[in-house]
Amino acid sequence: MSSERLIYLPLGGAGEIGMNAYVYGYGAPGKERLIVVDLGVAFPDMDTTPGVDLILPDISWLKERADRIDGVFVTHAHEDHIGAIAHTYAALKAPIYARAFTANLARRKMADAGHPEDSVQTVSAWPETLKAGPFEVGFVPLSHSIPESAGLVIDTPAGRLVHSGDFKIDPEPVVGEPFDPGLWEAIAKTGVKALICDSTNVFSPHPGRSESELSSEIETLIAAQPGMVVATTFASNVARLKTLAEAGQRAGRSVVLFGRAMRRMVEAAVETGVLTDFPRVISPEEAQDLPRQSLMLLATGSQGERRAASAQLARGKYRGMTMAEGDLFLFSSKTIPGNERGVIRIMNQFSEMGVDVVDDSSGRYHVSGHANRPDLERMHDLVNPQMVIPMHGEHRHLREHAKLAKERGRQGIVAVNGMMLDLSGEAPVVSEYVDTGRTYLDGSVQIGALDGVVRDRIRLALNGHVTVTVILDEEDEPLGEPWCDTKGLPEAGSSKADLVEICEADLHQFLMRADAKTLRNDDKLEEALRRIVRQTALSEIGRKPEVTVVISRLR
Amino acid sequence: MSSERLIYLPLGGAGEIGMNAYVYGYGAPGKERLIVVDLGVAFPDMDTTPGVDLILPDISWLKERADRIDGVFVTHAHEDHIGAIAHTYAALKAPIYARAFTANLARRKMADAGHPEDSVQTVSAWPETLKAGPFEVGFVPLSHSIPESAGLVIDTPAGRLVHSGDFKIDPEPVVGEPFDPGLWEAIAKTGVKALICDSTNVFSPHPGRSESELSSEIETLIAAQPGMVVATTFASNVARLKTLAEAGQRAGRSVVLFGRAMRRMVEAAVETGVLTDFPRVISPEEAQDLPRQSLMLLATGSQGERRAASAQLARGKYRGMTMAEGDLFLFSSKTIPGNERGVIRIMNQFSEMGVDVVDDSSGRYHVSGHANRPDLERMHDLVNPQMVIPMHGEHRHLREHAKLAKERGRQGIVAVNGMMLDLSGEAPVVSEYVDTGRTYLDGSVQIGALDGVVRDRIRLALNGHVTVTVILDEEDEPLGEPWCDTKGLPEAGSSKADLVEICEADLHQFLMRADAKTLRNDDKLEEALRRIVRQTALSEIGRKPEVTVVISRLR
Repeated sequence: MSSERLIYLPLGGAGEIGMNAYVYGYGAPGKERLIVVDLGVAFPDMDTTPGVDLILPDISWLKERADRIDGVFVTHAHEDHIGAIAHTYAALKAPIYARAFTANLARRKMADAGHPEDSVQTVSAWPETLKAGPFEVGFVPLSHSIPESAGLVIDTPAGRLVHSGDFKIDPEPVVGEPFDPGLWEAIAKTGVKALICDSTNVFSPHPGRSESELSSEIETLIAAQPGMVVATTFASNVARLKTLAEAGQRAGRSVVLFGRAMRRMVEAAVETGVLTDFPRVISPEEAQDLPRQSLMLLATGSQGERRAASAQLARGKYRGMTMAEGDLFLFSSKTIPGNERGVIRIMNQFSEMGVDVVDDSSGRYHVSGHANRPDLERMHDLVNPQMVIPMHGEHRHLREHAKLAKERGRQGIVAVNGMMLDLSGEAPVVSEYVDTGRTYLDGSVQIGALDGVVRDRIRLALNGHVTVTVILDEEDEPLGEPWCDTKGLPEAGSSKADLVEICEADLHQFLMRADAKTLRNDDKLEEALRRIVRQTALSEIGRKPEVTVVISRLR
Repeated sequence: MSSERLIYLPLGGAGEIGMNAYVYGYGAPGKERLIVVDLGVAFPDMDTTPGVDLILPDISWLKERADRIDGVFVTHAHEDHIGAIAHTYAALKAPIYARAFTANLARRKMADAGHPEDSVQTVSAWPETLKAGPFEVGFVPLSHSIPESAGLVIDTPAGRLVHSGDFKIDPEPVVGEPFDPGLWEAIAKTGVKALICDSTNVFSPHPGRSESELSSEIETLIAAQPGMVVATTFASNVARLKTLAEAGQRAGRSVVLFGRAMRRMVEAAVETGVLTDFPRVISPEEAQDLPRQSLMLLATGSQGERRAASAQLARGKYRGMTMAEGDLFLFSSKTIPGNERGVIRIMNQFSEMGVDVVDDSSGRYHVSGHANRPDLERMHDLVNPQMVIPMHGEHRHLREHAKLAKERGRQGIVAVNGMMLDLSGEAPVVSEYVDTGRTYLDGSVQIGALDGVVRDRIRLALNGHVTVTVILDEEDEPLGEPWCDTKGLPEAGSSKADLVEICEADLHQFLMRADAKTLRNDDKLEEALRRIVRQTALSEIGRKPEVTVVISRLR
């Protein structure tokens, strides 16, 4: 009997789509050597995280065990897998391993943050492997919507694990290696203990479609256009960029890349040899001299991001280019839930210009990068693991994926963020619950999600704000009258009188009648003044604002 | 030649989905008698309208012409068509006309707001008509996702208009009259000048499906359930409630209505004779005594609204009921764009409880209430108008709908909110642009969308807030040190020191060195103090907060 154990601990991504961060450990309990797979971010929204710049997984647990980390393995370069590496590097100080394209982008991130470039090491694909403490890790090419996505084969003293990363089954992915079932059968041959598997598309009932199926549809669409064509997709979807650019080229159009992220991705793909025959690209300046029917622009901003090239074109102009009646704008992308409003805004702005907008609703101009339900079944069968541990999904995805595994005769377990599984035995066992959560990058500061900072901002947005200033003299008597300042509140309410004046009058009345005990006690006085403002505002304008009370004592 | 003219003026709904408000006028230019069709609301969101309660159309134009309004005609009782009637009644004072079910709900709204109940008059369906100034108006039954939706036939001295309201073509709508093509042919016989037509589903390429198609699928689903079944849909979709309740009843379950809006809708439908054979409903209290497999709950909150019954069940409990492993939750509804996050939150909460969630993604448990593209074509052909004027849609819907009309040989024109069309001649002519916009119901106050109140709230949410207090003595010299208070900001930043203390120190330094001229001038001083706080915050925490400066002078 071994006293050592194999553990799995998701710190992000298991219970949400985004912010992936998974830990594997092997060793004596509490002394396991650790590796981390992916360190991603999630994106803020106005509803729950106004003003926040990025959402990072809370890695306190890892930080306290930094000396036991033998490496961070990044499966691919999507922000929800790679986005946190630079923000967490100082705390973890572990070497980062990735395939060439991913490593190229990782190094740019590290350099931007002032970290050493050699913190990132490029790894060759399977069958090469890498020793990291008790683990031996191989990067197995798997197609996804970004070049060089990899599933990891993680060999441990307790058996072989397969961590799928994000993947789809694509026999013809346009860029990168086709799906190779034989390779997976070979990997499975020695027996696989657990498949830790992407769950994003478990609710999609039909087999996934190949990236290559799009080219003829896109070509037909673009060939028929009389004006300029602008297409957007995720900047990192290099295969799609290639399909779009080639369709433009075949229609006799010159290709322009609009938006920094897009140029950076193509650059990284060319530098690393991932992309070898991309059509020649001209600059936005050169484009201005060409007739619009000779142009094919590829633009960032498929999710309606306000500062991206697409949104700027929709508002009027980007790098000297404007869209006009008869032009086409193609969303070769899907809208991620939550981004609908921004995307719809752009569609309507283009509509006002007379630009025709085509999106993915027909199914002809976009395919997903994730394995659908039948593809997941196929992957289960190929890898043939003892147990399936769904990851990368909201709770409903994980649950459905575990159900799917069980219906088909395998063990399946839902392990959400913070749930540590002991995988040493025949069945997974929950061995511990670890505190996890989210950290916000807020301006230049990292704050905890529960610090109250963002909660206060939401309250300010919902309720508005009143500042109350009171000065008391040496005898604790009010000096002059109280002042109010409002922000985000209507000037006048039901009585048509000025809200500030009514609040000041009510506060003044109170102060004139207040007893010495109240006037002497900061806390009591503050509470009383706050209550008066909230009550007065409620009766005047129907809402209770946030209140800051400043009591100044001349002593 | 007549010196009178026929005008059409959308004030809401033409350029957005929601907030419908359309004006028709006939008479000498500038002296037209007016009727209003629908007075609806739109709903706020955190991104653009935090803290706002309701969005109403700006009716300033109508207000100034209130003496010329001969009536408000409400096509149906959805909030985006009826929601503003009580909020605008005091300004317009025009009689409100609607069919019985709509009038019943309208009267409740008016009574809640303290308006006379006789402000709302019940109108019988076509062929009965009603004189309103130079107009003769008939309510023609058309099926939609609420009982007694009506298209309006508006006869004017310049010809017949058809205003479709929201509609679908449903030969078997479960509740209410089936679509009657013969009726529309008869209406078209005398010639129709313009069809003003719902555009919501113009991008849906397939013919719409009948409400009646759902019953067998829903029945099959519910019959197979071992636990409790909870279904949600729009409270006003009385036909769907009936389908769901009957499926529950056939499966031997007792039906419970969860949520005030749902009970009110069923009540109104029964009171007005729209609903005659709804299964017997038991109270939530009675339900608690029954085994869970004998229950079928119908709950409000299909859009994930936090306070509705569904969200409360997802968080734990509603009226003593909790959901459990093996129960089913059915979204017999679609998620309106923008509401995805709330709906997904509920799905995951149920998933955590072990509740199976089924939504509309299979197409089996929901059908739309709007006419799809082929249905719009059919309506165009039946009504056979001289011109099609698309309404109720974002710009992209209106534009596509006008294109559709033109492709099929009719005149089509995009008229957005504020664009007045003269319909007197053979072709529509844009005769005027009227200032329109949105009014916010904010607490108990109506404010303009451009008043800056909401903009300030958004800034508070994105940037946080600092209050700065400075006291100056009789000689304009600082008395004591300046004070700072923060809200919605991290406590400490890059230097690890307290943000408030650093700001106060920087302000103090400035005040010590400031010249008399600056100290004497409130505006200058305020601006200087604000700039210091913003700069200090930027270097400490990487963001520039909103700042309120309070300068108190002891004079």
